Amino acid sequence: MIPWGSLVVYVSPRGRRYIKRLVEGEDWQSTDGILSAATVASLDFGREAYTHLGVPILLQEATLYDRLQGIKRQTQIIYAKDIAAICLKLGAGPKKTIIEAGSGSGGLTVALSYFCGPTGKVITHEARPEFAKLTLRNLEWAGVGDNVELHEQDIAQGFAARDADALFLDVRTPWLYLDQALSAVKKGAMLGFLLPTVDQVRELLLGLETRPVANIEVLELFKRNWKPVADRLRPEDRMIAHTGFLVFCREQEMSAQFLHYKPKGTRERKQEAALKARLQGTD
Amino acid sequence: MIPWGSLVVYVSPRGRRYIKRLVEGEDWQSTDGILSAATVASLDFGREAYTHLGVPILLQEATLYDRLQGIKRQTQIIYAKDIAAICLKLGAGPKKTIIEAGSGSGGLTVALSYFCGPTGKVITHEARPEFAKLTLRNLEWAGVGDNVELHEQDIAQGFAARDADALFLDVRTPWLYLDQALSAVKKGAMLGFLLPTVDQVRELLLGLETRPVANIEVLELFKRNWKPVADRLRPEDRMIAHTGFLVFCREQEMSAQFLHYKPKGTRERKQEAALKARLQGTD
Amino acid sequence: MIPWGSLVVYVSPRGRRYIKRLVEGEDWQSTDGILSAATVASLDFGREAYTHLGVPILLQEATLYDRLQGIKRQTQIIYAKDIAAICLKLGAGPKKTIIEAGSGSGGLTVALSYFCGPTGKVITHEARPEFAKLTLRNLEWAGVGDNVELHEQDIAQGFAARDADALFLDVRTPWLYLDQALSAVKKGAMLGFLLPTVDQVRELLLGLETRPVANIEVLELFKRNWKPVADRLRPEDRMIAHTGFLVFCREQEMSAQFLHYKPKGTRERKQEAALKARLQGTD
Amino acid sequence: MIPWGSLVVYVSPRGRRYIKRLVEGEDWQSTDGILSAATVASLDFGREAYTHLGVPILLQEATLYDRLQGIKRQTQIIYAKDIAAICLKLGAGPKKTIIEAGSGSGGLTVALSYFCGPTGKVITHEARPEFAKLTLRNLEWAGVGDNVELHEQDIAQGFAARDADALFLDVRTPWLYLDQALSAVKKGAMLGFLLPTVDQVRELLLGLETRPVANIEVLELFKRNWKPVADRLRPEDRMIAHTGFLVFCREQEMSAQFLHYKPKGTRERKQEAALKARLQGTD
Repeated sequence: MIPWGSLVVYVSPRGRRYIKRLVEGEDWQSTDGILSAATVASLDFGREAYTHLGVPILLQEATLYDRLQGIKRQTQIIYAKDIAAICLKLGAGPKKTIIEAGSGSGGLTVALSYFCGPTGKVITHEARPEFAKLTLRNLEWAGVGDNVELHEQDIAQGFAARDADALFLDVRTPWLYLDQALSAVKKGAMLGFLLPTVDQVRELLLGLETRPVANIEVLELFKRNWKPVADRLRPEDRMIAHTGFLVFCREQEMSAQFLHYKPKGTRERKQEAALKARLQGTD
Repeated sequence: MIPWGSLVVYVSPRGRRYIKRLVEGEDWQSTDGILSAATVASLDFGREAYTHLGVPILLQEATLYDRLQGIKRQTQIIYAKDIAAICLKLGAGPKKTIIEAGSGSGGLTVALSYFCGPTGKVITHEARPEFAKLTLRNLEWAGVGDNVELHEQDIAQGFAARDADALFLDVRTPWLYLDQALSAVKKGAMLGFLLPTVDQVRELLLGLETRPVANIEVLELFKRNWKPVADRLRPEDRMIAHTGFLVFCREQEMSAQFLHYKPKGTRERKQEAALKARLQGTD
Repeated sequence: MIPWGSLVVYVSPRGRRYIKRLVEGEDWQSTDGILSAATVASLDFGREAYTHLGVPILLQEATLYDRLQGIKRQTQIIYAKDIAAICLKLGAGPKKTIIEAGSGSGGLTVALSYFCGPTGKVITHEARPEFAKLTLRNLEWAGVGDNVELHEQDIAQGFAARDADALFLDVRTPWLYLDQALSAVKKGAMLGFLLPTVDQVRELLLGLETRPVANIEVLELFKRNWKPVADRLRPEDRMIAHTGFLVFCREQEMSAQFLHYKPKGTRERKQEAALKARLQGTD
Repeated sequence: MIPWGSLVVYVSPRGRRYIKRLVEGEDWQSTDGILSAATVASLDFGREAYTHLGVPILLQEATLYDRLQGIKRQTQIIYAKDIAAICLKLGAGPKKTIIEAGSGSGGLTVALSYFCGPTGKVITHEARPEFAKLTLRNLEWAGVGDNVELHEQDIAQGFAARDADALFLDVRTPWLYLDQALSAVKKGAMLGFLLPTVDQVRELLLGLETRPVANIEVLELFKRNWKPVADRLRPEDRMIAHTGFLVFCREQEMSAQFLHYKPKGTRERKQEAALKARLQGTD
């Protein structure tokens, strides 16, 4: 039995996927025909039903992935491959507090909320009211968001939290908010950024150069789909070639000595160690 | 203050990263010198300390990513880019139950355990005692595992759970265990597989053809690192070109009618709809 | 002055490219207006002309690359990136004789003919009359082909040449023609193949295993375009993810001794060398 | 019979490839033993010979590809995948004149010379005497170069030819030589560039913005090798992730009208066409 309130994916024989919440009295209608809510509720996920036109329809539970694909978007959305890598790298999970800006359409917010769960927390910021509203709507639609605080504020004024475990910036000019970002996280926390152009990456790297950060990484992820046909196995003809550059780094105190450290020769080091050891009386 | 028991990453000026648990009385020793446990415990993550040789060392908290990099491995390990995509696709998270086999060195198990947290569950299977032991050791080392059940059993006999939300097989011949896998999950659940060669993908697809599954996907993920230097921004010279093929599908009842569905022309369909509607007295 | 008979590319302000041979009295007509042949002939390549509707049009010489893009195709055509790699790997150039089958639409034939020039030779085979005709037409259209022999014959009966410098097979089941191919080339010659699916690659590799060949290579080439905008430099959103697998090998006698050669230890080898040297009286 | 003077590839059972010219009296010597020049000359390419240590060695003709791999290099060399694409895009071939700078180690020069053959011409420029010498040496070694003019001169003073069919710049700051380059080629000719970093690409694009050029393209090529094993077919673990960005464009007069052309609505255009037609008396 599919519970009322479930997000149901209706899959048509032509492979189209429609997501709709199962609400009493609200039938699913499409060009393939009608499926009554009562019928759907009487079946299980993973089963098939026939519309009043006799068209078979698969009933599936909307997974996190389906929800990310299905959210309403008014902005460029972050792709699932990037969302997955961001959540892993930031360590989004139970008991963690993650800061995000801007919320945009809320795609990453949905995933962060999902992974952090009831014991974690997501603090997201969005200056434009229409996107803030959209994010809230998408969180509700996706069945997550209880652990999300949305702040309709400009991050130039700072973030609405301190001591976060990690922070992610998906804004056009992240280099303008680095001091605010560093003040909002725990010491040693991970920071992440998503940027479409190399010029933005360059500006960000210039900004990071003068800040207390370490472990700077710039990377791209590609997903290549294959046609799942056993006897003619081959990659799909086309793929997404670019979604954005991911940049990660960690808050880190770092002295000039560390940055300009010149390793000494082995002998020199042994002598010095011997000297120190003697002076410290540990010889 | 870094708490006793923390997994600390020690970063040397030459960029090497060492992970060690902070235990009272157990100093960190390296060719760069010694850092006493007491000193480290008196500092914060994200700070710097000097060894008795005067070498500056960064102190960082081992993130999930660091832990995945650092686990002891006796098998081919799954790369973080693939782990991230698997966890997202399976929907590993709070309140979910995920089945896995084989545990291998426990890399994916660590991530699944992390994301599922105290309210979720991971049921992992490993037939070889030495790998089962290694997985338990790596879970403990990584500071996760409370929600993990490890079964030292051959999955040919079936899995040690029913009604799981998702299942992942990282074994050489997954096509031999499809019936067992389908019996172990909830209706409509997501199944995932990782395979190094295309011949294995082919065998798996042949196996899936005769099983009740839908939404088969085959994909590869690539990660391309860039040199993070603002004025000479360019990709790294080399990259990992292949880790494995990811295959996903969902348990799904599917009739011959669905599979061989031929959409009718619009007019034909309208007539039929009108007829049905009349017969059903809903006109 | 653009010579009569030239292949001219007309570039419209919207970026569309039309290729047409410049023939006296045959004006270029498009939705952007008309350019008279006489006007075009009075100008130079790299100049601009205005149609009778006042639309500016760029006049360019059709390069080899333009010609490859512009040929009429009734078959899957080989992409320029693959054609370039094939021509280099086969060493297509002056004084060389290259065998090809099947001609298909003649894309590769055009390039081979171009690179081999007046002192080289291309022997192409095409069993289907309509494609043979199309290849001839495309060669003529592209302004090459004087060094091409087209044989409308089934290669199961063998190739129409011996002692070729290299041979390329773009057919569905190349493993059926390996003996014929090996008989048609010089000793040690390079053989190349293009195949869309991995199952075909597998069949071909199985066929090559039992033949006198060495240096087997399987590879894919990707081309990733970037948006050429200085201040927002970024890759294009989409790319061609798959065109085909290229396989290369060389005719090569190879003994079991070579294949199963076990290198000996240094000392063992020195002793043996000393022994041999003594026996040969060269010590 | 392998002709005296041939460039022979000696392939050892461990897969190492040595290239050496076959000269009377100059035996091939390696850790695998000695092969006398007379023996080699008595055999054919594609055959096997045994060293005095009894090690089997394959004898192959050095193809263009082998020669490109084997040239002595004191600079970063251009990869074969890029060389192939450059030669195709520039249309290097019989009867063409191609300008190049800098010669570097002469890798591209070898390929251009090969493809242009006896009826074509390569004009290469290299300011540093040691590289000029190296290029000449590599051309001779590779058995090409009769059609090459090497100018040991700084291209800031201009190129040593006019009216070339195409030009390629592999220098650190190509944007400084755009006017010289444009003066050295035929109207409408293709220009190409190779650059390792995106900042260089950006500088070049800024330089091209103010020059008479069209069809600017920026692209990257990737080559992914597969393990050629029929039953365990899979990509190699590692690949070259970056060699350089290729930039191409064509000399092209282009008016402001072309650049800022705004297509008019269909009706508007028809009216205008009608008006023009009337004024021109062609109605």
